[in-house]
Amino acid sequence: MSDAPIYFTSDNAAGMCPEVLQALIAANDGPAAAYGHDPLTQALEAQFAELFEYPVTVLLVSTGTAANALSLAALTPPWGCVLCHADSHIQHDECGAPEFFTAGAKLQPLAGARGKLCPDALAAALRQKKGDVHSVQPSAVSLTQATEVGSVYTLDELEAIGAVCRQAGVGLHMDGARFANALARLDCSPAEMTWQRGVDVLSFGASKNGAMAAEAIVVFDPGLARELAFRRKRAGHLLSKTRFCAAQLQGYLHDDAWLRHARHANAMAARLAHGLAAVPGVTLSAPVEANIVFCQLPEAVLSGLQAAGFMFYTGRWAPGVARLVTSFATREDEVDALLAEATRLAG
Amino acid sequence: MSDAPIYFTSDNAAGMCPEVLQALIAANDGPAAAYGHDPLTQALEAQFAELFEYPVTVLLVSTGTAANALSLAALTPPWGCVLCHADSHIQHDECGAPEFFTAGAKLQPLAGARGKLCPDALAAALRQKKGDVHSVQPSAVSLTQATEVGSVYTLDELEAIGAVCRQAGVGLHMDGARFANALARLDCSPAEMTWQRGVDVLSFGASKNGAMAAEAIVVFDPGLARELAFRRKRAGHLLSKTRFCAAQLQGYLHDDAWLRHARHANAMAARLAHGLAAVPGVTLSAPVEANIVFCQLPEAVLSGLQAAGFMFYTGRWAPGVARLVTSFATREDEVDALLAEATRLAG
Amino acid sequence: MSDAPIYFTSDNAAGMCPEVLQALIAANDGPAAAYGHDPLTQALEAQFAELFEYPVTVLLVSTGTAANALSLAALTPPWGCVLCHADSHIQHDECGAPEFFTAGAKLQPLAGARGKLCPDALAAALRQKKGDVHSVQPSAVSLTQATEVGSVYTLDELEAIGAVCRQAGVGLHMDGARFANALARLDCSPAEMTWQRGVDVLSFGASKNGAMAAEAIVVFDPGLARELAFRRKRAGHLLSKTRFCAAQLQGYLHDDAWLRHARHANAMAARLAHGLAAVPGVTLSAPVEANIVFCQLPEAVLSGLQAAGFMFYTGRWAPGVARLVTSFATREDEVDALLAEATRLAG
Amino acid sequence: MSDAPIYFTSDNAAGMCPEVLQALIAANDGPAAAYGHDPLTQALEAQFAELFEYPVTVLLVSTGTAANALSLAALTPPWGCVLCHADSHIQHDECGAPEFFTAGAKLQPLAGARGKLCPDALAAALRQKKGDVHSVQPSAVSLTQATEVGSVYTLDELEAIGAVCRQAGVGLHMDGARFANALARLDCSPAEMTWQRGVDVLSFGASKNGAMAAEAIVVFDPGLARELAFRRKRAGHLLSKTRFCAAQLQGYLHDDAWLRHARHANAMAARLAHGLAAVPGVTLSAPVEANIVFCQLPEAVLSGLQAAGFMFYTGRWAPGVARLVTSFATREDEVDALLAEATRLAG
Repeated sequence: MSDAPIYFTSDNAAGMCPEVLQALIAANDGPAAAYGHDPLTQALEAQFAELFEYPVTVLLVSTGTAANALSLAALTPPWGCVLCHADSHIQHDECGAPEFFTAGAKLQPLAGARGKLCPDALAAALRQKKGDVHSVQPSAVSLTQATEVGSVYTLDELEAIGAVCRQAGVGLHMDGARFANALARLDCSPAEMTWQRGVDVLSFGASKNGAMAAEAIVVFDPGLARELAFRRKRAGHLLSKTRFCAAQLQGYLHDDAWLRHARHANAMAARLAHGLAAVPGVTLSAPVEANIVFCQLPEAVLSGLQAAGFMFYTGRWAPGVARLVTSFATREDEVDALLAEATRLAG
Repeated sequence: MSDAPIYFTSDNAAGMCPEVLQALIAANDGPAAAYGHDPLTQALEAQFAELFEYPVTVLLVSTGTAANALSLAALTPPWGCVLCHADSHIQHDECGAPEFFTAGAKLQPLAGARGKLCPDALAAALRQKKGDVHSVQPSAVSLTQATEVGSVYTLDELEAIGAVCRQAGVGLHMDGARFANALARLDCSPAEMTWQRGVDVLSFGASKNGAMAAEAIVVFDPGLARELAFRRKRAGHLLSKTRFCAAQLQGYLHDDAWLRHARHANAMAARLAHGLAAVPGVTLSAPVEANIVFCQLPEAVLSGLQAAGFMFYTGRWAPGVARLVTSFATREDEVDALLAEATRLAG
Repeated sequence: MSDAPIYFTSDNAAGMCPEVLQALIAANDGPAAAYGHDPLTQALEAQFAELFEYPVTVLLVSTGTAANALSLAALTPPWGCVLCHADSHIQHDECGAPEFFTAGAKLQPLAGARGKLCPDALAAALRQKKGDVHSVQPSAVSLTQATEVGSVYTLDELEAIGAVCRQAGVGLHMDGARFANALARLDCSPAEMTWQRGVDVLSFGASKNGAMAAEAIVVFDPGLARELAFRRKRAGHLLSKTRFCAAQLQGYLHDDAWLRHARHANAMAARLAHGLAAVPGVTLSAPVEANIVFCQLPEAVLSGLQAAGFMFYTGRWAPGVARLVTSFATREDEVDALLAEATRLAG
Repeated sequence: MSDAPIYFTSDNAAGMCPEVLQALIAANDGPAAAYGHDPLTQALEAQFAELFEYPVTVLLVSTGTAANALSLAALTPPWGCVLCHADSHIQHDECGAPEFFTAGAKLQPLAGARGKLCPDALAAALRQKKGDVHSVQPSAVSLTQATEVGSVYTLDELEAIGAVCRQAGVGLHMDGARFANALARLDCSPAEMTWQRGVDVLSFGASKNGAMAAEAIVVFDPGLARELAFRRKRAGHLLSKTRFCAAQLQGYLHDDAWLRHARHANAMAARLAHGLAAVPGVTLSAPVEANIVFCQLPEAVLSGLQAAGFMFYTGRWAPGVARLVTSFATREDEVDALLAEATRLAG
């Protein structure tokens, strides 16, 4: 293999997909009103409304952490508690952003197989200390689709969680950092995976799947839209030249580029998983449903792959466990090179 | 004139300058580590250190509001008070971002001619209720260079304010949303306009002068750097594909593009001011020192210009007062077209 | 005069009135449920409902700052702005408590003669930047009755402010740290001075007029009651042995003790003002309407009174201005001693 | 037995002990400076310094939640994380007060036998994600002495935890809501149980053991004292008539009243535990070390005791588990009545 490292660390190691770059270049032609009053941004909301078959409000921001934390702040009072999975990004990887944006609400992590919330455990947690002034009050649920471990909630699973939330009278947030990968997996419509299952606010991620820095907060509960606009500005997340964020999403959505890229990333992960499963001593930690592969590697294979320039995360979980993530930019020959090297090392 | 509106609303109506766009395109070649561990971002700090002749820490963010609010949060405890000009952006145009990021510190607006803080008034305010537990405590000073009204602090004025801050033991923040325009005006070095005058943290703006969404928090006080890294992530302002933010600044700084653009914008404002002063009935509100022109227009001129497609802010100040802002993208023929139309209308 | 200092610094220099102390002692007989589930606390809400002729919710806290800040937090979102008088206690003397409890809302101080908000200026301020996402949004008004300078809003003045608030759709908070003194002055009912004039939440002060540490948040807007219970606990202001706070208020209200004490304090202030006005060189800063006297004293009188052991605040306002406050415990002979000494010094 | 309920719900069901009430009455004699400038409050700090054999700073507040949350806010930045026991009061019973006061820091609950933190698990948790900007940073440890389940850390256990904290460079807070009961149990000096073991800040509780509403934040780290004064005022916890809070503590400490009361409460709990252990079908959940008894009761005994007017908490833990708490006011005949009834019911 060549000297350049090959990235399986995360889908955010990739740059922009061509469609996004082209849209960015096109958007640079001439002046435009700032702060979202430009034609591109104004058109985007209609485009999302069509995509989601719903009169959504859309707020653009530049990071997933901002999208998540703003969404949760709109759903939760400071004395509230957000129920989430124990492995969730909001709990572990956002340096307390949800707590900051909500003015100190609490996250309550729940266990659940394969990175997914369990409806029964959720329902039980939502009943806890309801109305007890000594305790923070369950106020919202946040789930990640696709999950942090690479699994994907089925529509039935989402339906069950949505029903639990409605019954408890709490809002439901979906962290869709890898929304496209999940959608590609389920092969359903955006509507079917969100508001038709009870989702109130969605963090629609694009950065990991080909955008540069563009995430959309998609609001299905019209009562939340107004305050989100103030919260976003107040958090420094209203971009002055918003048109360039809108352009990224426009390019991303154009002609289903986003779904094409997600399907590719998923396929590369499947190829990787299939190949790894055949390597002696390697076991997959779980079926691969999106673009993340968790596997257990023999020590020689693990360190050998790293020495050969394959980059991925390890050391954060049980010894020998590695996480490999594919993206729109992952090439078949990169996957195959890794598989060949792993096979060689395991020999 | 053509049908397209001509923007004098703000310098953020312009898009990217060519140097920034080229750098962005170049940065898209291949994968890179995320969250600032890429070569472009890593090189940028050294570049800023050279530019500022100081071992600075640099944190990239995508908006000026984020740069300002994060900077102030590092300088001020929640029970602190930030002294600023009554017309400052942080007081009026950030929807309470400083209060949010500081966990509820107070801004104390001070009067001052031409958008500038007065050292004596500042010194007096810094002595108020010092140590009195019933009162928020003066903890930081924030000034804007160039100011919101288009004036530019002289080096002596900055020196005087820096001395007041040092004597009072409070930090000094410079909101440099239009740092380049001020620097071009003073024709001095970045060092002379910042740390050599006592500035502890600088919001180094680039978005208004040719970048897309790129601002740098430049930290001269090494004690503040570590906490800013956590504050930035927690606020959702750590970009995953940071390389694209770094690239913008790289392009911006390359071969002095930024200063060239700022000089052009300043020259266009001077041309505009000079021309307007010759229009019967028009008076300039103040000498024009950067790229902002405040003027008093006869009602017929004001509404006639708007009808002709010239866009600018009015109605926020005394009747007849208009603000016109030029940018790197403002063309001489656009300025001249406005002057011609104003002359015609005043005729 | 004797060696002991005589306090005109503030009404909080006095201890408990006899009725409060007796109620406290009585409340100590035997065990009781904690956190407000005791009979005394439970009875108090009904007592307040009768007193205010309204089905109020009452939350007990131990300081006026807590009562004010909690009330404002219930009325204002973090991106909101509370309009208040430039001399108000919430703006100057609470170390940013309103900003803390509201998660960073802004106070907007307004000028106004004699410590009172002016309805027209208020209406204008409430229209400012309405809906502009770059600006904090006017969300509540707070007035102090009696004011910090000792004046008292008339019922007509309150009516006008209440109407302005209703029209703007913002809540109205009354800081009633000296509610009793104002009520005694106006000789009206609590209902007439509050909800009948548009007040949504009242900080009903008792500590300054004979209680030890007891203030009641009286909520006229039933929509605010639930969240205030959580906010209070979360702020550490839910007392475990709440019965002792309730007992203070019970004793305070019993047989109109509170009004008797307030009338006495007001009468002492009137006596003081009347006497001072007759001292050569002394001028009253304003008519005295409650229990606070602001006056201008010749330097010799001012320093002479202090040397003689009379304690009061000076040095915070224009040179020579002194503030003298009377309480339920101020005796006629103390007032007369001060007047005699002032007369002697002015001679 | 009589008709009046007998309280074993919590030690806060008791009123004031005679020493506290007498001190309160005595403190009401004449006027005094407010906000802690009175002689009683001023003397108290020296008294605590003597008691703790250390030049402590003492800040009085009226609730344990305020004492805890203020202490943690002084030890933890907003992006910090406080390690505490999974059963701790700060985690479960303060409605998010720590999150509020710290501006959104996170609590990380740790398992540990008998309500106690385990030094090894603590050390491991303190190493997690150190310096990783994506994660909140371990910044403080909080332990409760006596614990929420009634156990008491030994001096050696405290020593081990203190050493772990020092090594990790994080502050150590002790929630001493039942400090006296723990001290009585260990029969050591306050110094031995606090700063000599590495405690930086102590919430010294008095309300549960005979005061009305008085807790002292005892600061051993002089660097934290100044900011706590501002934090307290800002949180509405600076009492205007502070002398009455000081008086409670003065009476509480006078002639070792507090230790006498704590020994009595502990003895009553021991008598209760000893008696219950002899009742057929009853098992103690744990050895009783302070004034809390956790036990498993047969259903008939549990409901029978409640029907007979004995009040205690149940239903929060496993079925049949009850918590009984004794106080300075618990009488032997009350304990014996419960034991007799339990024996009768179990018969």
